[in-house]
Amino acid sequence: MSLGADTAVTPTEDGRFTGEIQPGWDIVGNANGGYLLAIAARAASAAADGREPASVTAHYLAPGKPGPVSIVTELQKQGRRFSTVRATMSDADRPLVALLGSFRDTSIEMDSVERVEAVRPEMPPPDECVPVEPTETFPPPFMGKVELRLHPEDATNSAGVPRFRGWFRLRDDEVIDSFGLLVAVDSFPPTIFNAQLPVAWTPTIELTAHVRGTPEPGWLRCQFTTRFISGGYLEEDGEVWDGSGRLVAQSRQLALLPNT
Amino acid sequence: MSLGADTAVTPTEDGRFTGEIQPGWDIVGNANGGYLLAIAARAASAAADGREPASVTAHYLAPGKPGPVSIVTELQKQGRRFSTVRATMSDADRPLVALLGSFRDTSIEMDSVERVEAVRPEMPPPDECVPVEPTETFPPPFMGKVELRLHPEDATNSAGVPRFRGWFRLRDDEVIDSFGLLVAVDSFPPTIFNAQLPVAWTPTIELTAHVRGTPEPGWLRCQFTTRFISGGYLEEDGEVWDGSGRLVAQSRQLALLPNT
Repeated sequence: MSLGADTAVTPTEDGRFTGEIQPGWDIVGNANGGYLLAIAARAASAAADGREPASVTAHYLAPGKPGPVSIVTELQKQGRRFSTVRATMSDADRPLVALLGSFRDTSIEMDSVERVEAVRPEMPPPDECVPVEPTETFPPPFMGKVELRLHPEDATNSAGVPRFRGWFRLRDDEVIDSFGLLVAVDSFPPTIFNAQLPVAWTPTIELTAHVRGTPEPGWLRCQFTTRFISGGYLEEDGEVWDGSGRLVAQSRQLALLPNT
Repeated sequence: MSLGADTAVTPTEDGRFTGEIQPGWDIVGNANGGYLLAIAARAASAAADGREPASVTAHYLAPGKPGPVSIVTELQKQGRRFSTVRATMSDADRPLVALLGSFRDTSIEMDSVERVEAVRPEMPPPDECVPVEPTETFPPPFMGKVELRLHPEDATNSAGVPRFRGWFRLRDDEVIDSFGLLVAVDSFPPTIFNAQLPVAWTPTIELTAHVRGTPEPGWLRCQFTTRFISGGYLEEDGEVWDGSGRLVAQSRQLALLPNT
C-alpha cells in the first residue's frame, strides 16, 4: 500500500470524513505522528476544496492504533489564496489529533523573491549513508513504509549532538506530495536519541509543518536539530530540501521531557 | 492601561467569552498579532481551568480593529498535565483569529534536564541600544505599549541581514507573564525590513509560540531571524531570554510575500 492509499479519506456528510489508520505505520504500537497528521490534513484539504497544506499544526491527544477514524472539519475562512480549516480526528473512543491549518490555492502564483541565509545540510550520497530497516521492535515497523539513510556521523549514536541528518523517501519511490512532506518531517529518530542523556521517550505535544514547495522526485535531504532541552521541553526543528537544492518544508515540534 | 487589563476576558456562557481590542495596540490601524493572540489565549486558558500556555498557534483571518470581540472556546482534551483547547475570536462581523493550543498545569513540576546547544544573542545593554518610540504612523502607536531597544547594528536598516535583536519589556515595567510572552514574540519590526529587498508588507499567516518558562522581572533579550525567503513565504524565528540567561519562549511565524 502507498502513503496515498493509506491516508485516503471519504466524505460522509457536512464536513465529516472517514479514514483508516492502516497497520505498519506504527512505532512500538502507536501510529507515527506525521502519518496521523497526513490523514487529518487530507480531510482538512478536502474541506478546503482541495487546496494544499501551507501551514498545519497538530496537537496530539491520544495514540493512534490501526482501525477506522473519523475527521470532523470546519472551514474557518476561505480567502482568495488561503483557506483556514480546523479538524479533529477521532477513533471510536476518543479524539486523537486536533489540527489547525491554512491551505493554499496552488493555481495562484507565489512571489519569486529568493533569499536564503542557510546552507543545505551536507551529507554523503544515499548509498554511503546508513539505511534504517524495519524490525518488529526497533527500528520499528514504520521504517517499512519510509526509507531512511542516516548520515554516518549521526547513525552511530555516539556524537552526543541532538541532531539527525539523512535522506528520506517513501518506499517504492512513491512520489512525495505535500502530504508526503508531512510524513517526512516526523520520520527521523528523535534527536534526543543522540543527546547522550538519560531520556528516551519524548512525546510530541505539538507539530507544525510549513510546506514551501513541491519536491522534485527522488531522495529528500533532511536535517533535524534540537537546540534547547530546557524548561521540561525540547524543540525539534526540521528542514527538508529536494534534489534541486530548494527548501520544500520546514517543521518544528515541541516535545515533553517526561518527569520520570 | 496594562497588558493584563487590555487582554481581559469575561466568561458569558458555555465556553464563550467577551473581550475588547483596546486602542493603542495597532500598527497602521490593525491590532498587533501577538496582542490579538494574547486575548484569545486568555480565553482559551480560562477554558482550561487557568492552565498556562505551553504551545499556542494562531492563524490570522482578518485584521483586528478596536472594539468588542467574542471568543468561542472548546476544550478538546483535558489531560493530567496538559489541556488542549481550540478557540475562534471574532468581532461583530467576522472571525479574526483561529487558535489551537495546549495549556499546562504549572503545579506539576517539569523535568529539570538542561542542555542548550545555542548561545544567547549578544547585544549591548538596554541603555546603549536604540529605543523605538511611537508616532502616529511609523514607528506605530503599538510602540507606546511595549518598550523596545534595538541592537544598534540592526536598528540602522543597513546591515542587509534579515534579523532584529534587542530588548523588550512592557511599558511601566509591567510584569511579563506567559501572555506577555505571546506579545513579546510579535513585537519587533519584521525581519524583512532589514533584508534590503523590495518587499515591505508581509502578512502573517500563522504564528506558533512555545512558552518554556516564566521570565524573571526585567528586560527580555530577544532575537528574530529569517533564514528562508523562499517559495513565496518567509519564516521568522524568535527566541526570548530572560535576565537569568534562560530561554523563556521560542516562536516561529510564517509570513506571505505578497505577489505585487
